[in-house]
Amino acid sequence: MDTWLTSLRTDTPQAGFELAIKLARMGVKYTQPSAEARDRLRPAYAEDANALIASSQVVAINFQTIASANDYWRSA
Amino acid sequence: MDTWLTSLRTDTPQAGFELAIKLARMGVKYTQPSAEARDRLRPAYAEDANALIASSQVVAINFQTIASANDYWRSA
Amino acid sequence: MDTWLTSLRTDTPQAGFELAIKLARMGVKYTQPSAEARDRLRPAYAEDANALIASSQVVAINFQTIASANDYWRSA
Amino acid sequence: MDTWLTSLRTDTPQAGFELAIKLARMGVKYTQPSAEARDRLRPAYAEDANALIASSQVVAINFQTIASANDYWRSA
Amino acid sequence: MDTWLTSLRTDTPQAGFELAIKLARMGVKYTQPSAEARDRLRPAYAEDANALIASSQVVAINFQTIASANDYWRSA
Amino acid sequence: MDTWLTSLRTDTPQAGFELAIKLARMGVKYTQPSAEARDRLRPAYAEDANALIASSQVVAINFQTIASANDYWRSA
Repeated sequence: MDTWLTSLRTDTPQAGFELAIKLARMGVKYTQPSAEARDRLRPAYAEDANALIASSQVVAINFQTIASANDYWRSA
Repeated sequence: MDTWLTSLRTDTPQAGFELAIKLARMGVKYTQPSAEARDRLRPAYAEDANALIASSQVVAINFQTIASANDYWRSA
Repeated sequence: MDTWLTSLRTDTPQAGFELAIKLARMGVKYTQPSAEARDRLRPAYAEDANALIASSQVVAINFQTIASANDYWRSA
Repeated sequence: MDTWLTSLRTDTPQAGFELAIKLARMGVKYTQPSAEARDRLRPAYAEDANALIASSQVVAINFQTIASANDYWRSA
Repeated sequence: MDTWLTSLRTDTPQAGFELAIKLARMGVKYTQPSAEARDRLRPAYAEDANALIASSQVVAINFQTIASANDYWRSA
Repeated sequence: MDTWLTSLRTDTPQAGFELAIKLARMGVKYTQPSAEARDRLRPAYAEDANALIASSQVVAINFQTIASANDYWRSA
C-alpha cells in the first residue's frame, strides 16, 4: 500500500480526532481493499445505529493512541 | 468540518464526562453527517438497551482519554 | 444536568467500583434521559445474559479510569 | 452491598486473574442483584460461545487494571 | 484451580502473544469449566467469522497487558 | 508455530499499523489454524459491515500496543 501514515502528531485535538477516523477507515480498508465493495456497504451501515456506535468506538480507541502520542496537546 | 474541539482540558470531571459524550457523538457524525438521518435513528436506539449500553461504552473509552489528559483532575 | 460528579477519588477500591457503575449508568442516562424509558428497558436486559455481560464491560472500562485516578489505592 | 473489595493487590498473577473474574461477576451482580435470576441465565450462556468470549473480554479488561495495580508482579 | 500462571514475563513477543491466547482461553474456562462443553462449542465458533474476530480482540487486550509487563521487550 | 514475531519495533507508524493488522490476523489464526477454513469465511465477512468494523477495532487495540512499544515514533 502507498504511504498514508508518516506521523501520529497533529497540531490540534480535532486534527487528532480526524486522524483517528482515518485509522478506523484504514483498518477496514486493509481487510476489504475494494473501494467498490466498501461503497456498496456504506448506505446500509450509515442507517444502522449499532454500526454507527461501533464505528464511533473504533474512533475512540484510535483517538486514545493519538492523544497519547501528542501528550494530549498539553503544550498547545 | 468547523472547529469543534480545541482542547481536552476541562475544569471538572463532570465537564470531562460531557466532553466524552460529545466525542462519542462526533464519532457518529463523521460517519453519518446527515442530521436528518441521525434523528431518524434516534427513537429506535434510545429504546434499545443494547444500543444504550454500547453508547455508554464509547463514552467510557473517550472518558479514559479525557481523564488522562486532565491528570484525573487531581489538582482541582 | 445537575452536578453529579465532582471527583474521581474514592476512599476504597469498592467505592471506586461503585463509582464506575454510576459512570456506566450516567453514560446511558445522557443518551436516554427519560427515567420512564430506562425503567421500561430494565426488566428485559436484566434477564439477558449478553446485556449483563456488556454492562459489566462498561463498568470494567470505567473502573480502569477510576483506579488509575486513585493510583490503585496503593497508599490506602 | 457488603464489603467485597478492599485491595487490588494480590500475591501472584493467577490470584490477580481470579480477582479480575470476581470483578467481572460483580459487574453483573450490581446490575442483576438476584442470585436466582443469574442462576437462571447461567446454563444458556455457558453453552453460548459468543457469551463466553464476551465474558473472557471483561475479565481481560479487569485484569489490565489489576496487573497495573500490582506493577505486573515484577518484584514477585 | 491448579497453578497455571506464575509470571507475565516471556522471553519474546511471540511467547507473550501466545500467553495472551492462554489468558483468553482461561477466561472462558473459568466461566465454563467443562472441557466437554467447550469442545462441543468449538466447531461452530471456529467457522464463525464474528466469533473469531471477537476471540482475536480478547487476545489483543490480554497482549496489551503482557506487552506492558515485559516493557515491550525493549531490552531483548 | 514457526517464529513470526520477533519485535514490536517498526521504523514508521504505518509499518506499525500493518504489524497491528498482522497481530489481529494471527489472533484469528491461533483459534482457527486451517487456512482453508479461514479462506472460506473471508468472502462473507468482507461484505459484512459489522465484521469489518469489528476487525478495525481489533487492529486499533493492537495498534495501541505497538505505538506504545515504539514510543509513538516520537524520535523518528
